[in-house]
Amino acid sequence: MQIQLNPVGNMNLLSPLEVQQLQQSATCQLYQLYRNCSLAVLNSGSHTDDAEVIYQQYKEFNIQVLRRERGVKIALENPPMHAFVDGKIIRGIQEHLSAVLRDILFINNRYTDNDSSASITHQTFDILRNAEIIIPDSEPNLVTCWGGHSIQEHEYKYTKEVGYQLGLRSFNICTGCGPGAMKGPMKGATIGHAKQRINNGRYIGLTEPSIIAAEPPNAIVNELVIMPDIEKRLEAFVRISHGIIIFPGGAGTAEELLYLLGIMLHPKNKAQKLPIILTGPAQSAEYFQQIDAFIGETLGKEAQELYQIIIDDAQLVAQTMSKGLEDVLNYRKEMGDAYHFNWSLAIEPDFQHPFEPNHENMANTEISYELDTATLAANLRRIFSGIVAGNVKSEGIKAIREHGVFKITGDTKIMALIDTLLNSFVTQQRMKLPGSEYIPCYKVIREQ
Amino acid sequence: MQIQLNPVGNMNLLSPLEVQQLQQSATCQLYQLYRNCSLAVLNSGSHTDDAEVIYQQYKEFNIQVLRRERGVKIALENPPMHAFVDGKIIRGIQEHLSAVLRDILFINNRYTDNDSSASITHQTFDILRNAEIIIPDSEPNLVTCWGGHSIQEHEYKYTKEVGYQLGLRSFNICTGCGPGAMKGPMKGATIGHAKQRINNGRYIGLTEPSIIAAEPPNAIVNELVIMPDIEKRLEAFVRISHGIIIFPGGAGTAEELLYLLGIMLHPKNKAQKLPIILTGPAQSAEYFQQIDAFIGETLGKEAQELYQIIIDDAQLVAQTMSKGLEDVLNYRKEMGDAYHFNWSLAIEPDFQHPFEPNHENMANTEISYELDTATLAANLRRIFSGIVAGNVKSEGIKAIREHGVFKITGDTKIMALIDTLLNSFVTQQRMKLPGSEYIPCYKVIREQ
Amino acid sequence: MQIQLNPVGNMNLLSPLEVQQLQQSATCQLYQLYRNCSLAVLNSGSHTDDAEVIYQQYKEFNIQVLRRERGVKIALENPPMHAFVDGKIIRGIQEHLSAVLRDILFINNRYTDNDSSASITHQTFDILRNAEIIIPDSEPNLVTCWGGHSIQEHEYKYTKEVGYQLGLRSFNICTGCGPGAMKGPMKGATIGHAKQRINNGRYIGLTEPSIIAAEPPNAIVNELVIMPDIEKRLEAFVRISHGIIIFPGGAGTAEELLYLLGIMLHPKNKAQKLPIILTGPAQSAEYFQQIDAFIGETLGKEAQELYQIIIDDAQLVAQTMSKGLEDVLNYRKEMGDAYHFNWSLAIEPDFQHPFEPNHENMANTEISYELDTATLAANLRRIFSGIVAGNVKSEGIKAIREHGVFKITGDTKIMALIDTLLNSFVTQQRMKLPGSEYIPCYKVIREQ
Amino acid sequence: MQIQLNPVGNMNLLSPLEVQQLQQSATCQLYQLYRNCSLAVLNSGSHTDDAEVIYQQYKEFNIQVLRRERGVKIALENPPMHAFVDGKIIRGIQEHLSAVLRDILFINNRYTDNDSSASITHQTFDILRNAEIIIPDSEPNLVTCWGGHSIQEHEYKYTKEVGYQLGLRSFNICTGCGPGAMKGPMKGATIGHAKQRINNGRYIGLTEPSIIAAEPPNAIVNELVIMPDIEKRLEAFVRISHGIIIFPGGAGTAEELLYLLGIMLHPKNKAQKLPIILTGPAQSAEYFQQIDAFIGETLGKEAQELYQIIIDDAQLVAQTMSKGLEDVLNYRKEMGDAYHFNWSLAIEPDFQHPFEPNHENMANTEISYELDTATLAANLRRIFSGIVAGNVKSEGIKAIREHGVFKITGDTKIMALIDTLLNSFVTQQRMKLPGSEYIPCYKVIREQ
Repeated sequence: MQIQLNPVGNMNLLSPLEVQQLQQSATCQLYQLYRNCSLAVLNSGSHTDDAEVIYQQYKEFNIQVLRRERGVKIALENPPMHAFVDGKIIRGIQEHLSAVLRDILFINNRYTDNDSSASITHQTFDILRNAEIIIPDSEPNLVTCWGGHSIQEHEYKYTKEVGYQLGLRSFNICTGCGPGAMKGPMKGATIGHAKQRINNGRYIGLTEPSIIAAEPPNAIVNELVIMPDIEKRLEAFVRISHGIIIFPGGAGTAEELLYLLGIMLHPKNKAQKLPIILTGPAQSAEYFQQIDAFIGETLGKEAQELYQIIIDDAQLVAQTMSKGLEDVLNYRKEMGDAYHFNWSLAIEPDFQHPFEPNHENMANTEISYELDTATLAANLRRIFSGIVAGNVKSEGIKAIREHGVFKITGDTKIMALIDTLLNSFVTQQRMKLPGSEYIPCYKVIREQ
Repeated sequence: MQIQLNPVGNMNLLSPLEVQQLQQSATCQLYQLYRNCSLAVLNSGSHTDDAEVIYQQYKEFNIQVLRRERGVKIALENPPMHAFVDGKIIRGIQEHLSAVLRDILFINNRYTDNDSSASITHQTFDILRNAEIIIPDSEPNLVTCWGGHSIQEHEYKYTKEVGYQLGLRSFNICTGCGPGAMKGPMKGATIGHAKQRINNGRYIGLTEPSIIAAEPPNAIVNELVIMPDIEKRLEAFVRISHGIIIFPGGAGTAEELLYLLGIMLHPKNKAQKLPIILTGPAQSAEYFQQIDAFIGETLGKEAQELYQIIIDDAQLVAQTMSKGLEDVLNYRKEMGDAYHFNWSLAIEPDFQHPFEPNHENMANTEISYELDTATLAANLRRIFSGIVAGNVKSEGIKAIREHGVFKITGDTKIMALIDTLLNSFVTQQRMKLPGSEYIPCYKVIREQ
Repeated sequence: MQIQLNPVGNMNLLSPLEVQQLQQSATCQLYQLYRNCSLAVLNSGSHTDDAEVIYQQYKEFNIQVLRRERGVKIALENPPMHAFVDGKIIRGIQEHLSAVLRDILFINNRYTDNDSSASITHQTFDILRNAEIIIPDSEPNLVTCWGGHSIQEHEYKYTKEVGYQLGLRSFNICTGCGPGAMKGPMKGATIGHAKQRINNGRYIGLTEPSIIAAEPPNAIVNELVIMPDIEKRLEAFVRISHGIIIFPGGAGTAEELLYLLGIMLHPKNKAQKLPIILTGPAQSAEYFQQIDAFIGETLGKEAQELYQIIIDDAQLVAQTMSKGLEDVLNYRKEMGDAYHFNWSLAIEPDFQHPFEPNHENMANTEISYELDTATLAANLRRIFSGIVAGNVKSEGIKAIREHGVFKITGDTKIMALIDTLLNSFVTQQRMKLPGSEYIPCYKVIREQ
Repeated sequence: MQIQLNPVGNMNLLSPLEVQQLQQSATCQLYQLYRNCSLAVLNSGSHTDDAEVIYQQYKEFNIQVLRRERGVKIALENPPMHAFVDGKIIRGIQEHLSAVLRDILFINNRYTDNDSSASITHQTFDILRNAEIIIPDSEPNLVTCWGGHSIQEHEYKYTKEVGYQLGLRSFNICTGCGPGAMKGPMKGATIGHAKQRINNGRYIGLTEPSIIAAEPPNAIVNELVIMPDIEKRLEAFVRISHGIIIFPGGAGTAEELLYLLGIMLHPKNKAQKLPIILTGPAQSAEYFQQIDAFIGETLGKEAQELYQIIIDDAQLVAQTMSKGLEDVLNYRKEMGDAYHFNWSLAIEPDFQHPFEPNHENMANTEISYELDTATLAANLRRIFSGIVAGNVKSEGIKAIREHGVFKITGDTKIMALIDTLLNSFVTQQRMKLPGSEYIPCYKVIREQ
């Protein structure tokens, strides 16, 4: 069974030369990536975070980029049928498929190998601009919500409640685009937006190729961007947001928080305004105490002062965000900076260059109190990034399968802190969706 | 505590003369009605269907229509605070409040006492037109969903699933605007619409003054009309719909079905196209057998042929509706009729004139096989209408309190059928929202 | 040859009862009026101001209102063919035809005979609201331009230049909707709007049944309203405008200026803000001296202070209007008045009640220094109104044909002033479009 | 006096890297070009076609690209003041200035030196796409109008009449964006569009750097693109148009006609549908006879059959275009080609590679009956292109000043034909705007 469809958006307007390049990309090294990401969005709404399971289930799935006189067609063989209604693809999925084509095959050819900091930031910006994420004259009101894809029911309900309160206050939502804490705030916001008669609410999902299968865009995401790697994805989050909310989560959420604090600790960013709120339901109070303590003992008091912890008060979260937004806009105005892309935020190359989560890199990442705080934050970020890869990313899972668990070493005290934190993530089932027992992909070496 | 706000929509553009009339209306007989309906919409989202409870809870609530140089202001004293966000009224509720002003105070003065059939239909049309419900050049795709306000969780889930499948197929939804089967299809449709990137989905709620408190507009309703009475409300439903779906429900749903069949049985309506689907989850199969049998034994086979029963197949319901829509539009085209208001449907005065559900009228309503089928349908409709009033409408509850239960008499066989049907409604908790024991407001006299 | 077409706008959504009323109106006393106004808009762009000539040319023209299941159709027999492109009516003319249907046949039935001042103002407002002229949330920027339909080429060019400068400053234009000074400002504004990329410029034409044939809506008018009489038309002009510009003109322009000054002289209007500018090209300097002198000697210095004369400086006119607009909006804000309809402007019944320009009324209109200034202004206004009727209105022309010229009597000094002014209008060919010799329809009795 | 302004459109969303590139471009070789084009659009509405005169008049004019945190600013020193209203730049001119920035400085860096045919076509497409000229889902209805910038009053009136008739039929207009036959059809179309209530009419001006000063965008152009050279400009015209109308003109118009015929004569384009109409007022009949004879005697009967000559019938021109449009769309549908960019039209490199109009190239261009027809057309096109350059383009004028007139040689018979044609252009004042005597920049060597 083959279905042909037209891409939408700017993928609907290509020259033969561009189509030819797309086809070339599609037939060589990028094909597998393209196919898998496409499958992930076609499979939106599925209930597993195990990429391998999905790939096995749709082994017969095939996708091709066809050249036509007037542009390009996408041909699907044996796609998941729940992406179609009476034989016609669901519009939202057609848009997501077009986003995959755009971000994986099209935009990919544009950049030459220039890894200067300015060039990486330009690339991040250019991908977002090409995806029409940045809309100059629109109201600046984008809140990024981070948190686990695997969270408990009462936590999920709370993320919806926060989303609802944000939606009532006209905020748009950006998340990592998967389930759990990435879906709840969007879902809540749709109700808030509906009550306020806002019918152009934005639910932006930023993902990357290695995570999209495990955390496919939920049905509410109406703008999807696949950034080339986790580092550009994180840079995108912080530059386009007017505030960031962090819900309970596992290793990925810890990675995000460490990335964010590492950047905000930079002396050049001292005057920056960016409201950061850690929040969860009453039952999560202890969880945040733990996180807060971990930050305090690794990055220190200065880092702790960058965020605010609010327990079980969705309305207060949204009100705090509203107030914070004013400061953000005043600061941007003062600096002459753009409202929709924070150009003046300094991000060091340390945080920009892709970290490949293999055994060697994991072993070599230095964790020590002798590092300056920003470098320590950067390195801690990498450790958690590696664990996410070992948990749910295809490459990481393979590496673990072949070479055993990652060994994490470094300062004894910090090792103890990390171990405790990770153990609590495991106990609380934050590492993987429930249903199977979690087998750690790492070992923290507490004593050397 | 007093809050003043501007009405929106066409209530935002009034002359001093009109404002004066509004004020006059507001200060005399209509005030109580206006106040109560306003309170009902301010109280949207509350969890009781007992109007008296709501009215008791907000005894201090007060509403006034103020005259200003440039038009009118609404002044609220002690309103329910959940209608506000950071001191500002929620836009959707502001719109609903404006609809109450428009439909109760403003439109009310327009009609002289002419109760010819053409005049009643004109009035129904005029109220809908004034509320901008009829949009000539829009896609014709409105499905009315009827069903109980008090339904079980699995039934509610099923109504959402049907709404979702309708939304995926671009249908808009019209209901009686309360909770339960009136909310589920709208909620489901919002997800279907979101996936299809339809951001102007319509969720029309048609209500009437005596029911609005018990079944206030749910949060999804984005177009609200308060028709003057249940008869014009029913006429509005059938004339603006392109198809009707009936979910499990109690006396109100039975009233609606009987009204619909009574009209469709009219010889002049023989050629009319209007898909009617009775549907519910697997567990509701027996419920519909019962209803179907009741119709068969009272109105006969011809009536049974007017509808289709589909059990536990939301997708089939939506697909059947899609197909039926084609027939509807072809028929309208052929007849030169409007796509958005079914002028050619014949509705007899019997179905148009308000039935006042008091003890005398209930007692005098003839139920007999000697009546022609349409008249029997009309009278059965009245019986169920009276029971709804006795259950949840303010006037009805008072009448029962004073004079005891309604006595329902007539043909012995039919009395038995009615009694059985009503008993099953009671058993299945369809008469009232759960939480209290249901005490019947009627007595069926089975043997005379 | 018969052509059937659908009306547009709110005439596209009528009930059978309304269609029946339309048909009744159309078949009796209103038919001739309806037919003639329809012919006038179909004949837009023609080059005569002699209604009789037009009516003669299209004696075979016929119009009918047909009832259809879904509403109404307009049937045209032998219409002017330049209203059609390849057999299809030009959209703008279809809109104008619908406006005639709406204003002559539909709105007409609405009002009962209540001629209180408040009721007349309400009616004026209601007609404008029904025509969607008043748009609450739009930018307030409407300038009314008055002036002759028969003006010289250099004057016409100047009106275009003023319109251009107004358009560059985002002003919308309202005029009496005919040729000459009613067309020039609109034409100029379209260029100004185009340069500023304003693509929703409003070119509002306000007319009345007795003048529409002589001064049919020019092609640029995109919103047409036919007010019931000259008095409501004048009230509409002053209440919806944020400023008024008066170009050279004849008796009609004098009528408009006298009406305006008469109202603004009212003690209650002392604080009102309304920029009034008399302007023309260099060659018109003398013309305005004459007008100014006439006002000075009849209504006095106070009246002269209400307006500003600007000669040959289109840019200054527009800049003055921009500045004046600020004062207007500040005043309205302060008063709590609407931005789009000046409710707080006092207009006495004297200026509201229709003046029938027959021989008796013309003879009985008292012109004397003993009258208070406002009454004198009102009566002078009537005199000029009568002369316009005698010149170009069907009724007036007939009256003159039957009973001879109007005799104008009164205070000797004023009579001399009037005579001189009218003579200059005649000499300057302001009374009628060039092409025929002007034969006065009046005689000023200078000595009694 | 310095004025700073923000660019609009996609020039409003640039990264620092891009701004830096813009600045680099602006400070070196491209600066002069950028400055001159900017001056040309600021000077829109001026009355000379002598670029040198304009440049002399505004010697003090200076433009700079400034880098700001949030993007780019344009700084103007001593700009022509008629581009401003009360100190604020006219929006249309701001858009044109942004187009110059976009097309001269920004897009310029994108293309590597690949002059394959496919690459040139891609570049043409890419520039148009980047300028948002190609709108996939819009109605296909674009007519290109060619003709002289210096035409007589009755010819100009006729171009307006044709534009009016096209506008009445919903056609959009594309021209070379200057005065004369490039302005008339746009002006006429605005009236047609206004009457049909089309408020998003498109008036596309395609120009190139060397002609923009002599023929600056007229005030009606609401979409401006500066193509890199005349060849890509011509390719853009023929690929985006659904029909082409040719009015009387001089050497430039002859160049356009020869280009068009040369392409359409290509065997691969035999089945192509593209209505080509040569038209003018009654007085132009002879002019077109002359052109037609010239085509007949150089390119033959087959070429003559590609166009239709319509004299003095604007309505027929528009009706013929309407009919032709149907064929065009049917053909595109059949071919699977795009509606808004004619990909399937074959254009040989001969017609794509820029022809530099210097003395050597002019002398070496072979004109002979021994060439195949398409090559002869290509070479004749170059001859006329060179003459346009010598007449009004800055480079060309300088070349003539230094080295004397171009010498045109070749087949004796064709030389005679060319000489006669050019002489008639001179006599009819089609070479330059009236006001100065025309001194030919060429000499046709009739006998060798």
